[in-house]
Amino acid sequence: MRQNTTPTPRTTTDLRDVLVASTDAAVQTWLRDVAGSWDRTEQVDDLTDAEVRRLVALLTPETSRELFDSIDTSSVVTVLSVLSPAVGAGLLDSLDHDRSAEILRRLPADERRDVLDRTGAVRSATLRGLLAWPDDSAGSRMDPTVVSVTQTMTVAEAVETIRDQARTATLDNDEVLVTALPDHRLVGVVSYLDLVLAEPGVVIGDLMDTDVVSVGALADQEVAARLLTEHDLSGIPVVHEGELVGVISVEDVVDILDQEMTEDAERQGGSSPLEVPYLRASPLRLFRKRITWLLMLFLAAMYTGTVMEHFESELEGVVALMFFVPLLIGTGGNTGTQITTTLIRAMAMGQVRMRDMFRVVRKEMATGVLIAATVASVAWVRALVQGVGTDVALTVSLSVVAIVLWTSLVASVLPLVIKKVGIDPAVVSGPLITTVIDGTGLIIYFSIARVVIDQLG
Amino acid sequence: MRQNTTPTPRTTTDLRDVLVASTDAAVQTWLRDVAGSWDRTEQVDDLTDAEVRRLVALLTPETSRELFDSIDTSSVVTVLSVLSPAVGAGLLDSLDHDRSAEILRRLPADERRDVLDRTGAVRSATLRGLLAWPDDSAGSRMDPTVVSVTQTMTVAEAVETIRDQARTATLDNDEVLVTALPDHRLVGVVSYLDLVLAEPGVVIGDLMDTDVVSVGALADQEVAARLLTEHDLSGIPVVHEGELVGVISVEDVVDILDQEMTEDAERQGGSSPLEVPYLRASPLRLFRKRITWLLMLFLAAMYTGTVMEHFESELEGVVALMFFVPLLIGTGGNTGTQITTTLIRAMAMGQVRMRDMFRVVRKEMATGVLIAATVASVAWVRALVQGVGTDVALTVSLSVVAIVLWTSLVASVLPLVIKKVGIDPAVVSGPLITTVIDGTGLIIYFSIARVVIDQLG
Repeated sequence: MRQNTTPTPRTTTDLRDVLVASTDAAVQTWLRDVAGSWDRTEQVDDLTDAEVRRLVALLTPETSRELFDSIDTSSVVTVLSVLSPAVGAGLLDSLDHDRSAEILRRLPADERRDVLDRTGAVRSATLRGLLAWPDDSAGSRMDPTVVSVTQTMTVAEAVETIRDQARTATLDNDEVLVTALPDHRLVGVVSYLDLVLAEPGVVIGDLMDTDVVSVGALADQEVAARLLTEHDLSGIPVVHEGELVGVISVEDVVDILDQEMTEDAERQGGSSPLEVPYLRASPLRLFRKRITWLLMLFLAAMYTGTVMEHFESELEGVVALMFFVPLLIGTGGNTGTQITTTLIRAMAMGQVRMRDMFRVVRKEMATGVLIAATVASVAWVRALVQGVGTDVALTVSLSVVAIVLWTSLVASVLPLVIKKVGIDPAVVSGPLITTVIDGTGLIIYFSIARVVIDQLG
Repeated sequence: MRQNTTPTPRTTTDLRDVLVASTDAAVQTWLRDVAGSWDRTEQVDDLTDAEVRRLVALLTPETSRELFDSIDTSSVVTVLSVLSPAVGAGLLDSLDHDRSAEILRRLPADERRDVLDRTGAVRSATLRGLLAWPDDSAGSRMDPTVVSVTQTMTVAEAVETIRDQARTATLDNDEVLVTALPDHRLVGVVSYLDLVLAEPGVVIGDLMDTDVVSVGALADQEVAARLLTEHDLSGIPVVHEGELVGVISVEDVVDILDQEMTEDAERQGGSSPLEVPYLRASPLRLFRKRITWLLMLFLAAMYTGTVMEHFESELEGVVALMFFVPLLIGTGGNTGTQITTTLIRAMAMGQVRMRDMFRVVRKEMATGVLIAATVASVAWVRALVQGVGTDVALTVSLSVVAIVLWTSLVASVLPLVIKKVGIDPAVVSGPLITTVIDGTGLIIYFSIARVVIDQLG
């Protein structure tokens, strides 16, 4: 057995060595030594089209399953693109229905049709069924090969039923679902452990846990993921119009959460989701995903120039005012980013909802007062040290207070309002809140300057 | 059964109604109707100390387990703080070892000792054992009640062994671990499904999967989580000095990943991790978590003032230069944030490592050229529209190019270097990279201005 203490064990063999040896044994060794899915993905990505074909030819259903279950979906799509539809169909046959559907979903429509046409009738029907569910829906992520028994069976009968099902399909759900005939309504669940522990004569109906949480097939996959984590389940049944249609396992949920977290992280950074692993994203893709936000923010930020033109007289009068512009708007932006990232994460976890808005604003304003007082006093000292007049020093300190409080209000309200109107709050990224604060912060700063300098200057 | 399509089902009863009725039935109903862990947590948090005591008195071991397994750990800690050590010990007895240890870990040392002193000898020994592992280590998150059989047993004998273990402990691992005597070395794993499907006479040694991935008890919990997700396991055995000491289930892994993702999100926002759910964090806590970074960045940002003083002559000569300062440093900061957030997430997922640095820099510089060209041309038009001279327009456009390229370099190198020196790359937050770029961007801008204006002006 292997014991790992780092998430990505060092590569001890190279996939090209496997192709040179071109034996099943070599493949087996490579799969054992190169365990990390990212190491495997990188090595597959490095292969030429010819090498990919030679590799696929080498694989048995078992090794094919182990390899293509573990590597990144976008790599499998690349692999399929260099194979004939028939070979591609054979490759997918080694994988679970839900994994196959996940891959087919990413293929161009024509390639997908070609592959499906070369897949066995029963299986292709199942796959077409899965592909019919909308992207990112619970239905699109479920495993339709549900292990189910009826509540009237005894444990012995149930075990026989499960053995029958095991002959025709690979069962990898962590629990057995219990349905009531004739309409296959979901009525309960028993775990394999329950079956192992129970006496053969016990009736499933007496053994099953009837308090089942399930999710609609059309619900968002993230909803299914959160339900499963909130209720600490090992799998969540998917139902449609009352009927049991599949199961999402906790392993799938980890993938879903990782995917959603990555998209949120990218949005928080002011970029659209990349949809492929970073190292596989071409500069052109990175450019396309980033430029839209960047240009929108750039155009929005242009009004900072207009604001400053408007206050040109103050600026020419007291050039020292300029020295503090980056410092002040920077501090506003940082305060805003601190608030929005924390708040948006709490919203994603389902901890904060619209009805909590008042609590959030009150909390953030209170925090803002503490932060404003601290930073303003540092700013006061700094300004005097820099040798500007008390008028500028006072302006700067007052501006810090006003900007921090203004930011606390905007940053705590914006994500909740955005979500209320049906937009993903993650779009309120650091760059967005920073840009909003830059311009408004300048107006606050120069307005205070005008008043203070009129009084003191 | 309940079917949910939102992660947080509406509350249909209130915990205070339960206290009024004060029957076990009322508790049962409430647990059924209020399913979401956050709804439960909020309602428990709202109770007074007296009400908490009355609630705990109402609970049976079963309802106590269901309630305190589902609500946030910090709430359980608050509950324990108002109970007598004896009652507290009773409450913890209803929970699994790993959950109890997780809670005890958060108690003040003296409270923890008091509770442990009132816990049964065997159990308190197990708990003290778990607490001995360092915070956030795999050992601290594992369930020590491992279901294990030896490889020489038959399936029938194994089932008997598991039944015996089930009488003394709640088994909730998703698989059975197989060890070799005498030293309890981990040699393989069988699933409950395997046991259900296998004939009673089969020897475990022939049935088990010997290719087991395990993690060291002292490894970071996130390493265990990533290993489990990379290998798509339903649980990962924890070993110490060759001996099997526990198991981390995939349910625990979801908690671990959520916790780590939340901490990363908070760091990315330029704040220290809150360690409690957002709504439970007091303004004082928020202040403490945020002010350190904010002040450090504020002090760092002060040199922007120094930079501008240094270029005061250019500024007084051409005040129009000022109008573009927020726009330019803002664009630099946004570009930097886009890069670092994407890169740091990819690093957290184990997709990008130090040895990929050259690929990252090349990729980001290529992207930077595309972005610089696009934004610079927009900036050129904007400057002319605003009616500044061609000298300023040229300065601004050239500065956009220089700043974007400089940012692409810094933002792609910094996270990898930071990690190399052993610091969590997540500290390279949007606020940090923005502050770094603010000052250096100004130097670039004004230096270009000096040259261009000398030539054209």
